[in-house]
Amino acid sequence: MRLLPHWASPYPRQHLGSDVLAGIIVTILVIPQSLAYALLAGLPPQAGLYVSILPVIAYALFGSSMVQAVGPVAITAIMTYSVLAPIAPPGSPAYIGLAAVVALGSGVLLVLCGSLRLGFLANLLSRPVIAGFISGSAVLIVFSQLKHFFGVEPQGSDAATVIRALLADGRLDMASAIGLTAVAILGFARLWLAGLLERCGLSPAAGGFVVRLFPLLVVLGATATVIAGDLDRLHGVAVVGRIAEGLPGLTPFLPAAGELQQLALPILLVALIGMVQNISMGQALAIRRRERLDANAELRGLGCANIVAAFSGGMPVGGGVSRTAVNVAAGAQTPLASIVSALAMLLVVAGAAPLFARLPLAVLAASIIVAAVSMIDLRSLRQAWRYDRADGLAALGTAVGVFVLGLEAGIGLGILFSLATLLYRASTPHIAVIGRIPDSEHFRNVERYAVETLPGTLFLRIDESLFFGNLHALESRLASELEKAGDTRHVVLIMNAVNRVDATAMEVLSDLNRDLCGRGIALHFAEIKGPVQDRLIGTPLWQELSGRVFLSVNDAYTALASGTPPRAD
Amino acid sequence: MRLLPHWASPYPRQHLGSDVLAGIIVTILVIPQSLAYALLAGLPPQAGLYVSILPVIAYALFGSSMVQAVGPVAITAIMTYSVLAPIAPPGSPAYIGLAAVVALGSGVLLVLCGSLRLGFLANLLSRPVIAGFISGSAVLIVFSQLKHFFGVEPQGSDAATVIRALLADGRLDMASAIGLTAVAILGFARLWLAGLLERCGLSPAAGGFVVRLFPLLVVLGATATVIAGDLDRLHGVAVVGRIAEGLPGLTPFLPAAGELQQLALPILLVALIGMVQNISMGQALAIRRRERLDANAELRGLGCANIVAAFSGGMPVGGGVSRTAVNVAAGAQTPLASIVSALAMLLVVAGAAPLFARLPLAVLAASIIVAAVSMIDLRSLRQAWRYDRADGLAALGTAVGVFVLGLEAGIGLGILFSLATLLYRASTPHIAVIGRIPDSEHFRNVERYAVETLPGTLFLRIDESLFFGNLHALESRLASELEKAGDTRHVVLIMNAVNRVDATAMEVLSDLNRDLCGRGIALHFAEIKGPVQDRLIGTPLWQELSGRVFLSVNDAYTALASGTPPRAD
Repeated sequence: MRLLPHWASPYPRQHLGSDVLAGIIVTILVIPQSLAYALLAGLPPQAGLYVSILPVIAYALFGSSMVQAVGPVAITAIMTYSVLAPIAPPGSPAYIGLAAVVALGSGVLLVLCGSLRLGFLANLLSRPVIAGFISGSAVLIVFSQLKHFFGVEPQGSDAATVIRALLADGRLDMASAIGLTAVAILGFARLWLAGLLERCGLSPAAGGFVVRLFPLLVVLGATATVIAGDLDRLHGVAVVGRIAEGLPGLTPFLPAAGELQQLALPILLVALIGMVQNISMGQALAIRRRERLDANAELRGLGCANIVAAFSGGMPVGGGVSRTAVNVAAGAQTPLASIVSALAMLLVVAGAAPLFARLPLAVLAASIIVAAVSMIDLRSLRQAWRYDRADGLAALGTAVGVFVLGLEAGIGLGILFSLATLLYRASTPHIAVIGRIPDSEHFRNVERYAVETLPGTLFLRIDESLFFGNLHALESRLASELEKAGDTRHVVLIMNAVNRVDATAMEVLSDLNRDLCGRGIALHFAEIKGPVQDRLIGTPLWQELSGRVFLSVNDAYTALASGTPPRAD
Repeated sequence: MRLLPHWASPYPRQHLGSDVLAGIIVTILVIPQSLAYALLAGLPPQAGLYVSILPVIAYALFGSSMVQAVGPVAITAIMTYSVLAPIAPPGSPAYIGLAAVVALGSGVLLVLCGSLRLGFLANLLSRPVIAGFISGSAVLIVFSQLKHFFGVEPQGSDAATVIRALLADGRLDMASAIGLTAVAILGFARLWLAGLLERCGLSPAAGGFVVRLFPLLVVLGATATVIAGDLDRLHGVAVVGRIAEGLPGLTPFLPAAGELQQLALPILLVALIGMVQNISMGQALAIRRRERLDANAELRGLGCANIVAAFSGGMPVGGGVSRTAVNVAAGAQTPLASIVSALAMLLVVAGAAPLFARLPLAVLAASIIVAAVSMIDLRSLRQAWRYDRADGLAALGTAVGVFVLGLEAGIGLGILFSLATLLYRASTPHIAVIGRIPDSEHFRNVERYAVETLPGTLFLRIDESLFFGNLHALESRLASELEKAGDTRHVVLIMNAVNRVDATAMEVLSDLNRDLCGRGIALHFAEIKGPVQDRLIGTPLWQELSGRVFLSVNDAYTALASGTPPRAD
């Protein structure tokens, strides 16, 4: 292992200024978010600040992306809440312990996946399914926060339970007023402020900065209001409460085997979603910045961040969309920005934490709701639906699944949808019967060109690699073509698009050769790629092949037209 | 729905004789097997006879294969045993009821899969994984039957428990003597008898028939021995016991919701394995007989057979390898043979059942063991390993998984192995940088041919359909090629092998276009297939495309060589 991460040896000094500035800006801007997502995860708000320190440094040292920012994220937070809330009361010591176990477990899993080079598993979910999952989760998030507005404690995170609790016990009070006002201000800032500022002459960059500063201003304003009016003591407005002063230390712990078993599925899901989100964002960023992302290094980095998070804050972390956007917009060039941001956060925790003690929870809930609403991606759903009905159904199914059945069942549905589409598509390979364009050496699909064919001979061009999933399609296509033309004596498989023939395919082709031979039909191959042929030599298929192997389709055509006996070589 | 199945309207009269004869032969030959597999499933042996009547007729009416024979099969039987034994004592009324629920549930699931055209799901498992699963199960089957030889009752079906029980309580007695003798005789018959008979001048067909008759002879001989020596009463040799006389009726029942929930996974697995086994065998048979198999009709047929089995015998059924082999060897031409066999079995149950009352269980166990040993397919495992390390690992992993972790975890591992291979292979598409063969219009891979390229231009040929699973590979390949050649201004994607572009791919290409555009690189397409282009028109990708769409690679090459500005059309 290198002593220094790849970006620091040597560190490009010209980036020092922008990295330091970006780090400081990020810290200031993500404070409200960090507090809010910890609340969303059912943890004490300061947990969000704590995991913005050491885990961020761990990711900067071991990750691969140059500008991705890791920290508390909404999706991981709501997943933590939804899997742990049924097991322990949110905020209780037991709950906090379990959250750390989830972080540790998914961290270890991510490091393992990275070390075993399983980064390709991040391809398990299609974009429509991811969009559906995020949209469904966003709706769940909005519902989960309404309790902070209307002073209820629903006994579950699913929509039905929350609605029932709201209808039964919901009340409008000072907290509701603060929360709804905050939603109005933040919503206004997100939707219209940038445009307004631009019309007032501000540059888009400056306007964007002001918009991003708004959550912090609202948080500070609300805290000031509470302090001024003594609203927490006089009107019972719920606030963050006293944050332990001083620096957060490491909390050593060892998860019990029973806990790990109970949390196996949640851990797996948190790891999977973290993986998918992190890699897809990292990849997009890398392309935009002309860099390369090492998906496996990325997983190891995210895994290390989560392992560290388990012992220092106890909340699972991920690559955050808005966090990363802030980082990029603020001009970060290397992970040094994240290290600066972690150090700045350390100062905040050490010094400014008491400031947040009287911050009303309803304001944090408001910032979560506004962020969640912007995650609902109806455009993607509509677009997928219009473009490809199967993709649209997968997206809609996942979204509805998350909302109705919960996050775990929803993501399960999404994986199922994705894999079923994959399997379905892979199981319907493109296969064409081809013939020769008269007086040429060109061969084309008989259905689309006027071509000549040889009587008693079937030329089948296989346009995809052969593997266990698409052999049934090949077999039934061949059977139907043989049925159509009753007198076939030669079958030529054209393999120029076949890059791989797996063990199942080799066996099936071997069976096919034997069966065809028994029916008096010779099986030939043409244009097999070198590596495929190398592997097939020595298999029963090659030893027993009833026909010949031709270099080109034209060779096969000429030989069979002139009646050359099969297996002449 | 037609009144008569496809094969009976009209029924080809010339096949009547061979079908009737085949039906009768099959019945005689499968009696020992039917009793044995019911025993293997932990059910009363007569259940095997009962499900060889009405379910067989249901499959003949609704299935698609002409010669596949359905009935009790070893794999489904051991699965039934392994999932139900932990829930209820084998053979108890509760156990028998649960077995019927498994049959009903998997039947309904199969009919649903067939009606929803999900037959392609049978492609979920690769052949090496199936071979591994069957081999692992066969070893489990052998272990499960040793108890009948050595008079023990292990409290579980896993190998470790069985071995512990054998070591602690195993004893050698009269039953062991009968069982081991039967294994010796049956093993001899299977391995050497055919060759011996042939050397004595018998035809291979006649010899095969004698070999297949051996299990029945052994069963009859053993029963005669027990009766002659009164071994069951004097020496406590366990026998089948009294079989309810007369005809088996339908047992109406309704599964409780709780049972269905508890058995959901087993039901799913029995349905999946039944599906895979049935369709792969049916497909192979159909090709050999120049027929076509409708996979979805096949699933509906197998499903109906299982639904009927639930109410009439209560044991899940499947397409049996040896049963089908007997059917084909006996000369069956249409499913009428199965109907004849069902009617003949009805006569057996009505008349000859008392004959089996004193049949020793150890002999049935012996016939199971001999059949199971022949299912262990070391050749396939070795061959897969030699041909493709990944396939070999998947096979071995599944086999060891089944043996060590049990059937359910084993098949789960197998599915995981298969899907991981599928995803991994799909996620590494073949992409080539191409150039022009000098003074021609031919374009080839720059790594394998001496070709000329245009400075500042990158021609990438994508050799596979684009979908969510392989876009990361495309993105990173593109990024690395752009990094290699720092001054690229045009990227041309050659799409002649791309048959589909799913919603994720469309979005990624659209993002790519935008990102490349931001870097001053134009994105062009060449040789897009008609259906793919039709779908892309109207998407953001098409509307914002920074480059052009060329009909041929040569057009693109010529245009870019002559410096035609992008987006001239």
